[in-house]
Amino acid sequence: MTYCVGLLVNQGIVLLADTRTNAGVDNIATYRKMFIFETPGDRVVAIMAAGSLSITQTTIARLAEANVVEGANPETAILLAPTMMDVAAIIGNTLAKVRSEVEQKLAPVGQGAAASMIVAGQRRGGRMRMFLVYPEGNFIQATDDTPFLQIGEHKYGKPILDRVVRPETSLADAQKAALLSMDSTLRSNLSVGMPLDLAVIERDACRMVLTRRYEAGDPEFRGISESWANAIRESFSNILV
Amino acid sequence: MTYCVGLLVNQGIVLLADTRTNAGVDNIATYRKMFIFETPGDRVVAIMAAGSLSITQTTIARLAEANVVEGANPETAILLAPTMMDVAAIIGNTLAKVRSEVEQKLAPVGQGAAASMIVAGQRRGGRMRMFLVYPEGNFIQATDDTPFLQIGEHKYGKPILDRVVRPETSLADAQKAALLSMDSTLRSNLSVGMPLDLAVIERDACRMVLTRRYEAGDPEFRGISESWANAIRESFSNILV
Repeated sequence: MTYCVGLLVNQGIVLLADTRTNAGVDNIATYRKMFIFETPGDRVVAIMAAGSLSITQTTIARLAEANVVEGANPETAILLAPTMMDVAAIIGNTLAKVRSEVEQKLAPVGQGAAASMIVAGQRRGGRMRMFLVYPEGNFIQATDDTPFLQIGEHKYGKPILDRVVRPETSLADAQKAALLSMDSTLRSNLSVGMPLDLAVIERDACRMVLTRRYEAGDPEFRGISESWANAIRESFSNILV
Repeated sequence: MTYCVGLLVNQGIVLLADTRTNAGVDNIATYRKMFIFETPGDRVVAIMAAGSLSITQTTIARLAEANVVEGANPETAILLAPTMMDVAAIIGNTLAKVRSEVEQKLAPVGQGAAASMIVAGQRRGGRMRMFLVYPEGNFIQATDDTPFLQIGEHKYGKPILDRVVRPETSLADAQKAALLSMDSTLRSNLSVGMPLDLAVIERDACRMVLTRRYEAGDPEFRGISESWANAIRESFSNILV
């Protein structure tokens, strides 16, 4: 499985993805699930992927290719598309098409495959946007009422987001919330694992201001994790029933 | 859906169940999911149920009947069975049989149905036990390594249990942990709802020492919920990233 979370707050966007993939618990590997496309200052698009790796890798490869191919055009190139909504549509169409191809290959053995994506970013002159693209290619976007989106193993890490994330949450706090949401998921579910990929986009910068990999045993992540564990235990013992 | 959680600690057993059932989000009702069988001082058995109501109600009705029918015997009556392991086996067999009957009725329309149960209690002279009975009738039991069991919407409420529940956790703290685990689930998932049923069994009492229903708006539950929300928010703002 996978856990990816994206937060869209007034100050910017925070994205966090794990890197664990598994085909059964005895076949575990590390694959990057976060992909960044940018023309710094003009446009930044980040994609996080969950689901069948054969679908997500091919989708990302085709999206990358469409930006650089001779005759690249706004209909298929996410770095050229007129709006973020168009970017989401291109990604949705590509994802659905690749899925359909993979499912045709799997049909003889009676299996299916699917993948979903979180797409976030901003183009110059437009607003920041964040979308959840479904396996069928349709998509929804984050709003002020629901300023975060999750894909993969989303349940363990949802309570903390429900409690603390609002549009007015600072970018630093959004980063903290994403890390704590991931921390809860890592502790409770073996199919989500380190290292983690973090990306931060500031509003109107139209480029990545921070990308960071947290390797297993990263002292900063471990510090946050331990502080939170202690704070939870302390809060727990202070509650009176 | 449903959320039921049972904690088996050295001092006793704490059980907590919600009461929401739904057949689609437009068909929501309240049904008790916790059932208590006891011969106070001799034996206490509590059952919590998740899954298809047509299976769980019939299963509970048959288990109740088997205790009082003429010629009630230790092979089928959970109040007479020699050990708690036998109690779990009787419940598993009954559950699997009812499920099989219901599935035969559903087969023509291509549907299935299933239910699972948490069974906890003690008989005089035996140890406290807690089991998770699967839809097929097999079961596992809680151990010192894993002193809690969950059925239904278990993911939202698992992180807090992973963090604070150990065999040496006091009965009061186990009750608090169960309520906070339920609180996180209620906040994040609409298919789990108030009122809640709580039951507490002290070690070697072989009877219920406390049963309590928390209605919607219950001031005690609301107090715990609000204190916890405040504590989480305060802890969150104290963590340095």
